[in-house]
Amino acid sequence: MIELRIPDGSDFTLANLPYGIFSTADRSPRAGMAVGKDILDLYALARTGAFDFDPEVFNQPVLNDFIALSKCVTSRARTQVQGWLREGGAGVVRPEHLVPMSEATLHLPVRIGDYTDFYSSIEHATNVGRMFRDPENALLPNWRHLPVGYHGRASSIVVSGTDVRRPLGQTMLPDADRPVFGPSQRLDFELEVAFVIGKESRLGEPVPIAETEDYIFGLFLFNDWSARDIQRWEYVPLGPFLGKSFASSVSPWIVPLEALEPFRVAGPEQDPEVLPYLRTTTPAHYDIDLRVTINDRTVCRSNFRHLYWSMRQQLAHHTSNGCNVRVGDLLASGTISGPGVDAYGSLLEITENGKRGEFLADGDTVTLHGHAGAGSSRVGFGSATGTVQAALNNQP
Amino acid sequence: MIELRIPDGSDFTLANLPYGIFSTADRSPRAGMAVGKDILDLYALARTGAFDFDPEVFNQPVLNDFIALSKCVTSRARTQVQGWLREGGAGVVRPEHLVPMSEATLHLPVRIGDYTDFYSSIEHATNVGRMFRDPENALLPNWRHLPVGYHGRASSIVVSGTDVRRPLGQTMLPDADRPVFGPSQRLDFELEVAFVIGKESRLGEPVPIAETEDYIFGLFLFNDWSARDIQRWEYVPLGPFLGKSFASSVSPWIVPLEALEPFRVAGPEQDPEVLPYLRTTTPAHYDIDLRVTINDRTVCRSNFRHLYWSMRQQLAHHTSNGCNVRVGDLLASGTISGPGVDAYGSLLEITENGKRGEFLADGDTVTLHGHAGAGSSRVGFGSATGTVQAALNNQP
Repeated sequence: MIELRIPDGSDFTLANLPYGIFSTADRSPRAGMAVGKDILDLYALARTGAFDFDPEVFNQPVLNDFIALSKCVTSRARTQVQGWLREGGAGVVRPEHLVPMSEATLHLPVRIGDYTDFYSSIEHATNVGRMFRDPENALLPNWRHLPVGYHGRASSIVVSGTDVRRPLGQTMLPDADRPVFGPSQRLDFELEVAFVIGKESRLGEPVPIAETEDYIFGLFLFNDWSARDIQRWEYVPLGPFLGKSFASSVSPWIVPLEALEPFRVAGPEQDPEVLPYLRTTTPAHYDIDLRVTINDRTVCRSNFRHLYWSMRQQLAHHTSNGCNVRVGDLLASGTISGPGVDAYGSLLEITENGKRGEFLADGDTVTLHGHAGAGSSRVGFGSATGTVQAALNNQP
Repeated sequence: MIELRIPDGSDFTLANLPYGIFSTADRSPRAGMAVGKDILDLYALARTGAFDFDPEVFNQPVLNDFIALSKCVTSRARTQVQGWLREGGAGVVRPEHLVPMSEATLHLPVRIGDYTDFYSSIEHATNVGRMFRDPENALLPNWRHLPVGYHGRASSIVVSGTDVRRPLGQTMLPDADRPVFGPSQRLDFELEVAFVIGKESRLGEPVPIAETEDYIFGLFLFNDWSARDIQRWEYVPLGPFLGKSFASSVSPWIVPLEALEPFRVAGPEQDPEVLPYLRTTTPAHYDIDLRVTINDRTVCRSNFRHLYWSMRQQLAHHTSNGCNVRVGDLLASGTISGPGVDAYGSLLEITENGKRGEFLADGDTVTLHGHAGAGSSRVGFGSATGTVQAALNNQP
């Protein structure tokens, strides 16, 4: 018989059971599942013969091998664990399989292959377009026809808790005639949710929108740190580059897509109607409350359902040209802004590009939170947090 | 005593000795070195105790573990092999270590982490800017101040010889009021050279330009296939995405940077002067003749030295914000056009966006070639070739 420690309001109820990678003072990184204030050591459990696959998939510093077993296998494993935990361990899960989260270090849970960042919030795209381009035509002509996105940098994605150094970079000051190099003066966060690919597709073969959910293993919070001054100078004509690539932070627990099933909702109406390869009749959005704090002060309350483009549409579009996806690839939503300044998912929008407030200062801690549901049905993401370190003062 | 088969005009002289991954009917992929018409089986050689590192780094389907040993080790290994081969094997390299290239299959030589594509040819950027933006101001204001680049897609990079399927995609026809979905009508190649990162840098720590060569393991040819019609509709404001991500082809042999030392030349003068972090006094360009054929007809003769921005500047800029690089990351040059239409590195430029000729047809074979020097000092890249397959006719 095991005793679960799931306090009221915990993100990690039995309805959730997200996956992560943890280490302890005595043991190297391995797979675990968050259960209240504890981590279920999946490797220890698997070695007792609890599952019908090789326990070694859990004895890895990343979840990729487990995820690659297929959703059929990973989903069944989670349902089994859920059943055992609901019966006090059922003689399968034993007290020694639980590790207090307070004694563990959490790691980046997947080896990320390619990372793509979308731009799928109509409020965010409109706000940005209004500030940087034409206020009368804030949305560019393609925006309502396809989920605009770009490739991001995978190497600099770090797990929650990692400090983020203020980047140096080239910027052009207003009215200057040549650029300068130095610490970014407009450091920002972006509130995003990213999903992890759980199934490989073949090069040259689009994934039909009806099949896209088979490819979505799970989701986590994603802070796409941005240096607005660097970005603004560099981004024409090929898009954001060094203004983004210095760091992105993710929450340590991957919430499996199936845990979010009760929170599935319809998205906003799309007008004009999208092309057939982007059409889906199933509701494909999820009602997930999102919140951002800076030094514990809430600066944004938004919701994942505000996105104009769904994950299904993002993936169908991404593979429509035959581009293949691999296990561990990441597709992020883009900044998730909702209607109204309280729901804006970046300081760029909240401060109107610095007019009504400040960008991030050294020492600021930005934390993203997210959850769906309440009580024993609550499915939470935990948090993605990072503190801004001062820039290097020796320039390269 | 071994007998080398290095015909006149071979790309793979003893001055070159590039690395690749090959398999044979009887043996799985492993590391090799191209020597004339043969491949030196580095794993077989290493198992005789020829080197002072673990032979297993060569018994892998990618070169990453070998490259990660450090340039000091990989460079010495190459110099040793060069010495032995110059002495007829010196009793170390034996006939059974050589495999005829005609009996081998060549594979993608590295597991690519992140792939970045630059835009470093002033002729190319000017030609494209003239066609798609303002002919009077073809170069955007940032272009001469920093090497503009963007993140590309790594999953769809394939080795020379792999067919490339014409992508489907969304395009907006002239004067249409809504986009359509179907096979790209403007399929193009791009003549590029890419370099492979050989040393990890730390997140948050820029690589000073003086140290950048320590991070460059070697180079290969890179064809960044492009669908101009898809690209044109999607690329604002975040840059190229599905117009590029369906495939890129690389030549199978990585030419180590040290083999190119005799061909080092100064680049074009940069005006205005660049910021200090991009300044270097050493000549940092390389005189490498490049050629593109379509169905064996030469359509472009260019040279790697035409680039405005050097590899050193690209890497210094890329890491200037603290973005880390990892072994196996790829940095590609962008299309290498030279002065004059005969030196234009894409059909977009050669045909003036279809006005003076056609884009690629199904069945067309595009091949990139590259080499420096002549005779027994010739250092060649072999080729990167790919044939266009018809688009899928069942749309997703």
